[in-house]
Amino acid sequence: MASYKLTYFNGRGRAEVTRLIFVVTGQNFEDVRIEQDDWPSHKSEMPLGQVPVLEVDGVKLPQSLSIARFVAKQFHLAGKDNLEQAKVDVVIDTIADANAEFAPIRWGEDETKKEEAIKKFFAEDLQKHLKNLEVLAKEYSNGGPFFVGNKLTWADLLVYDILEGLLQIDNNILNKYSWLQRNREEVAKQPKIAAYLKNRPNTEF
Amino acid sequence: MASYKLTYFNGRGRAEVTRLIFVVTGQNFEDVRIEQDDWPSHKSEMPLGQVPVLEVDGVKLPQSLSIARFVAKQFHLAGKDNLEQAKVDVVIDTIADANAEFAPIRWGEDETKKEEAIKKFFAEDLQKHLKNLEVLAKEYSNGGPFFVGNKLTWADLLVYDILEGLLQIDNNILNKYSWLQRNREEVAKQPKIAAYLKNRPNTEF
Repeated sequence: MASYKLTYFNGRGRAEVTRLIFVVTGQNFEDVRIEQDDWPSHKSEMPLGQVPVLEVDGVKLPQSLSIARFVAKQFHLAGKDNLEQAKVDVVIDTIADANAEFAPIRWGEDETKKEEAIKKFFAEDLQKHLKNLEVLAKEYSNGGPFFVGNKLTWADLLVYDILEGLLQIDNNILNKYSWLQRNREEVAKQPKIAAYLKNRPNTEF
Repeated sequence: MASYKLTYFNGRGRAEVTRLIFVVTGQNFEDVRIEQDDWPSHKSEMPLGQVPVLEVDGVKLPQSLSIARFVAKQFHLAGKDNLEQAKVDVVIDTIADANAEFAPIRWGEDETKKEEAIKKFFAEDLQKHLKNLEVLAKEYSNGGPFFVGNKLTWADLLVYDILEGLLQIDNNILNKYSWLQRNREEVAKQPKIAAYLKNRPNTEF
């Protein structure tokens, strides 16, 4: 059987969705967490000089969403056929769009403009992305609480994880989005996820 | 048999990689091209108010890379198993990173800063992405001219398509990247691709 070694910083960040996939499917994996101070000595071990990297059977995979999609497919959390997998990917791309817009705002260096930019993102762009997610749910969920096919997929997990970072900044962002609220509750109450969320390391990001 | 209807503007843009996948695998598809003036009357037909959208068996899929990945899987151009598909996805994410950085520069509204920003992108960030692509080729190509598994995949097609847009601005960008040059030549000489490139509509973008 293949063994899986996931290397990232000691944070949730771009590795957490893959950890959640391993957790909810009950798979063992090596969860290597590099402290920031030790990163320079590890950077050259990574194909693109970045993490996360998943090592499986001697192959190193960078790129967080490619890693997560691979693990989700290995453990049947990616949709049951090509069309379901495509619907899952559409949700992934849509929440990833939101994250891609927010990351440079959140981690930007200009502190004076940051507060205003965050406020603007939450009031405008984020609303568009949340509406888009509810539209996709309406198209693909068959009326259930999960995005695709009435079954938990890694789309639910990535949305859960990215919205968590946003909810920590403004706890009210889902007030107008009842489907997303329910989806979030359903993810959190999966027994293995619930146990993990209770016990996972408390990290800065 | 499923029928495929791809709707986009009358341009290559974010739909062209999917067209190339249909072309090289010899599949029929409906290639709907909306003129910019007609877009407002079609926008509401699209799930997220954006194109490309692929319609298959009554399902509408937005998000260009999700569409392309789906079509590639349908017609066996996505890698033969989960691990090969992951390697393909890593290449996709890496060229998409380059595109995501360049798009706001290319289509940005501030004409005064554009020329300088483009020059900086070509001199710095693009070099990093091209090096990354050659690193991935070294890891995954088994010494052949295609990115993964000695066989054409949609990774080769997306790299071909995105680099084409960049080569139109600076024809010398691949001079230091001999593997990428050869990969590009191999894609272009696939008979169905060669015929398509010769005859496809000449569009603004």
